[in-house]
Amino acid sequence: MQNQEENYLPTLITATPFEGRQLAIKLARKSIGAIQPDAGIRQQLRAAYASDTAQLIASAQVIATEFQTIAQANNYWKTTD
Amino acid sequence: MQNQEENYLPTLITATPFEGRQLAIKLARKSIGAIQPDAGIRQQLRAAYASDTAQLIASAQVIATEFQTIAQANNYWKTTD
Amino acid sequence: MQNQEENYLPTLITATPFEGRQLAIKLARKSIGAIQPDAGIRQQLRAAYASDTAQLIASAQVIATEFQTIAQANNYWKTTD
Amino acid sequence: MQNQEENYLPTLITATPFEGRQLAIKLARKSIGAIQPDAGIRQQLRAAYASDTAQLIASAQVIATEFQTIAQANNYWKTTD
Amino acid sequence: MQNQEENYLPTLITATPFEGRQLAIKLARKSIGAIQPDAGIRQQLRAAYASDTAQLIASAQVIATEFQTIAQANNYWKTTD
Amino acid sequence: MQNQEENYLPTLITATPFEGRQLAIKLARKSIGAIQPDAGIRQQLRAAYASDTAQLIASAQVIATEFQTIAQANNYWKTTD
Repeated sequence: MQNQEENYLPTLITATPFEGRQLAIKLARKSIGAIQPDAGIRQQLRAAYASDTAQLIASAQVIATEFQTIAQANNYWKTTD
Repeated sequence: MQNQEENYLPTLITATPFEGRQLAIKLARKSIGAIQPDAGIRQQLRAAYASDTAQLIASAQVIATEFQTIAQANNYWKTTD
Repeated sequence: MQNQEENYLPTLITATPFEGRQLAIKLARKSIGAIQPDAGIRQQLRAAYASDTAQLIASAQVIATEFQTIAQANNYWKTTD
Repeated sequence: MQNQEENYLPTLITATPFEGRQLAIKLARKSIGAIQPDAGIRQQLRAAYASDTAQLIASAQVIATEFQTIAQANNYWKTTD
Repeated sequence: MQNQEENYLPTLITATPFEGRQLAIKLARKSIGAIQPDAGIRQQLRAAYASDTAQLIASAQVIATEFQTIAQANNYWKTTD
Repeated sequence: MQNQEENYLPTLITATPFEGRQLAIKLARKSIGAIQPDAGIRQQLRAAYASDTAQLIASAQVIATEFQTIAQANNYWKTTD
């Protein structure tokens, strides 16, 4: 099943830092989707964690970690280095 | 909706380390905003977590992680390297 | 027993970023298998944590960390550097 | 208000590793201050978390992460490299 | 007592990525042994955490972090670089 | 008071990886000492967390993070690079 999954990450390269943030959020969500593949259950769960600050903060930690990788891949979007 | 969001991160480059800290805090907050887009709910939640030390510490962890990325992007604000 | 385990990580190199994500998920699962080697117990546990958002988010954090290593190993899948 | 805040981080460079540790602790504290700006509330909260080992350990994690950044900025205080 | 401890880490270099994973698991265990040196107590505790998914996931996070260090030390087991 | 503290970190350089682990454990402990400076209270707290697996694992996470920094400072104890 894992192999039939859509290729949600063709590249780590993004045009801008902001698009890099959006990719980081996407990667975090896809990880959760890999563990809980049932979209209906995820939808139910979402209502709960979006109002639980501890979980919001933990989610922000995942995004920060994913963004580190993306920012490095893009050499921090510095045009000259 | 994600695409209509304001571009809150035009660059990772900041003039000073202190501005880098402020950007790290902003990124942490924007991550939470991406998951819980309702500002009213966030406002209610804020009162709770700002008085919960475990959540304050977890927030500081997110800021530390975001700051790592920003500090690297700015070559630690070293003028010569 | 640890030594008789299958070699589940012949290499950190993957053809694409997406395969790198899949490897990150595999590594996270193998870590859990190393601590709880009983597949039956893991199966029982899985039902529980796949519906617990805090644990889903914590799992996503592990995947993000493993992916950092894999992405670095693959030089972020950049063909020229 | 964020902008009127004192500049608590003029530089990431410190003379010694030990001063780097002290700066890491300071950064961790300033993050908490940014989220909970009321010093009176922080004072009350401090008594609680300083006797809660889980929170002490979580605080040590923040310090470790901040120190990584500071140590990198100072090239690990190696005089020749 | 810490000084009389066996030298469980003569080197970070391993022949293969898989051996690197095994070393990461060993390091994680040794950290726990350093804090709780009583093997009998650790044995009792083990039964508990091996059936607690939150703790299994937290353990996997430690392994992922240790593995980052080991993978870097081994230049990701790339023969030419 | 912070300034009168002993200089517990004269250098990040250690002779061996094993000494690097011991330094990582020391740094983790010193962070906790910085937040809870009362040794009597720390002694009392220690009994509790050394039997709480979740806290043992969290402590191992701090040690892993500190060790990353120390290992980098020592170029992974590779004699030639």
